[in-house]
Amino acid sequence: VHAPPTIAVDAMGGDGGPAIAIDAALQVAATGRARLLLVGDGAQLAVDGSVDGIEIVHAPAQVAPDAAPAALLRVQADSSLHRMYALVREGRADAAVSGGNSGALMTVGRAVLGMLPGIDRPGMLATLPTLHGSVRMIDVGASLRARQVHLVQFARLGAACCRVEQPGHVPRVALLNVGGEASKGTDAIRAAAAVLRGLGTLDFRGFVEGDAIFEAELDVIVTDGFAGNVALKVAEGAARMARHLLALGGADGGALARRLLDVRPRNGACLLGLAGCAVKSHGNADRDAFVAAVDRAIAAVVERLVPRVAAMLAADAAGG
Amino acid sequence: VHAPPTIAVDAMGGDGGPAIAIDAALQVAATGRARLLLVGDGAQLAVDGSVDGIEIVHAPAQVAPDAAPAALLRVQADSSLHRMYALVREGRADAAVSGGNSGALMTVGRAVLGMLPGIDRPGMLATLPTLHGSVRMIDVGASLRARQVHLVQFARLGAACCRVEQPGHVPRVALLNVGGEASKGTDAIRAAAAVLRGLGTLDFRGFVEGDAIFEAELDVIVTDGFAGNVALKVAEGAARMARHLLALGGADGGALARRLLDVRPRNGACLLGLAGCAVKSHGNADRDAFVAAVDRAIAAVVERLVPRVAAMLAADAAGG
Repeated sequence: VHAPPTIAVDAMGGDGGPAIAIDAALQVAATGRARLLLVGDGAQLAVDGSVDGIEIVHAPAQVAPDAAPAALLRVQADSSLHRMYALVREGRADAAVSGGNSGALMTVGRAVLGMLPGIDRPGMLATLPTLHGSVRMIDVGASLRARQVHLVQFARLGAACCRVEQPGHVPRVALLNVGGEASKGTDAIRAAAAVLRGLGTLDFRGFVEGDAIFEAELDVIVTDGFAGNVALKVAEGAARMARHLLALGGADGGALARRLLDVRPRNGACLLGLAGCAVKSHGNADRDAFVAAVDRAIAAVVERLVPRVAAMLAADAAGG
Repeated sequence: VHAPPTIAVDAMGGDGGPAIAIDAALQVAATGRARLLLVGDGAQLAVDGSVDGIEIVHAPAQVAPDAAPAALLRVQADSSLHRMYALVREGRADAAVSGGNSGALMTVGRAVLGMLPGIDRPGMLATLPTLHGSVRMIDVGASLRARQVHLVQFARLGAACCRVEQPGHVPRVALLNVGGEASKGTDAIRAAAAVLRGLGTLDFRGFVEGDAIFEAELDVIVTDGFAGNVALKVAEGAARMARHLLALGGADGGALARRLLDVRPRNGACLLGLAGCAVKSHGNADRDAFVAAVDRAIAAVVERLVPRVAAMLAADAAGG
């Protein structure tokens, strides 16, 4: 029988102070499935008496939510975030959990724990439910931009995670991109694709677009942290809307669903800024969707969109 | 009584050849709400006899789907895309519609039509339905990365579009970002925020995150084309999933909905690549969600995720 794991929890990291972390720790400790080290300002963490399986680790300093990386590293070895990671480094905890700022978590984690050999930067890996099960996405916001080398490292990390969780399965990996063709995307994405095509430890499936992530049969989607964060959060926001629709039900739900969910009436994106009116239709539009794009162009002509936008910009420039 | 607008349609731009564009043109022409110039290879565009309101404009060359910008401009003045834009420039058409590659649409549009004064780059503006109505998003993929100046121009274009469509309303504009705090995002985004705060022609609302775009009361969301394309397409993919759930209904739909739509069980993202196990929880997690993040950490410890990932990376490096 193994002892339950010890988890160091940054009690000060969440948006609303330590109450949530304390409640969660009490619930987990009550089941005995882990021991918890609650790290933070002892005065705010006073759990009634001593609770079995919970220990308070005093760390009085606070990481400012918007501290710059240099400030994070200079100051606060006695912040809850530093102490949390130090407990893992010292072997007193097996893992760390924080609801703090992603950038701070990454910066302090690199400084206190260090990196795995061959990896320059951590990637934040989240799991999204899909039609066929789930898919891992890495990075969802540990950093913002990623060069080729980072994307390749994220792919190797995500694939290794999949191989640990599904032994014997060769991970199907794709890069998040704005199109499926080899010419699409930034230089970093295209260069990463060239490297990933040559890796024998994973099954590289090329590019995946945002609309396919819930349907594609993939194990790992690789992206920079900005796009990954946007993708994850849009998916969460859409799930919240879908729950709202299902809860509404009836005629109200049906009317809202028709408005929110039918993509065809909104096919047709204006290329604003050109000295003339141009509308882009989806490449794979069906007839009704293409008609919608033509109607978007007709409406723009009728409302004189481009000349009126041009006049406004000119007036704004003249006015100030 | 005004004459109906004339719309130049790039019949060769869609993924599946000209059939969709021809069908759409026939449908629009039949109602008389526009005249259509169908631009493309005359041999493929032969509409039976002469149809009222449709004219074929022969442009035999094809734009390769993955042509580089230089190649686009060098070659093909007789491509359907060039001819489409030329018809607008010459005043023979009032607007242009194409299902072709976004990059080609932008590059050729700039070259043939030119830009509005003070605008360097077109932004592609799409409309997304929201709980409160709809919101414009610009750029959804005309280009990939945007510097500060481009983000500010997109904001001015999107706001002008809103002022044309809703006279008297001051557009509420936000920048898409990975968090709401002023410190979040790339240098370009933060610099653009500083400029937008000073513009009197719009109501700058700061940063919006991906999960809020369906609920926020905004008129224009500004972003670079990569993130905008990802956001738009994830929203489309999510809408497709939601339609699928509603169509399934019953017990099957309910079970799938519970799995796809409950965000709490999947709170907790692993910071992979650190030399130790760390899990990030949402900053605004409730107790159950925070427990899920702790359980994610417990599972990672129990399955020895980090040491096994480290061993795999080392073996891969040794092996190849």
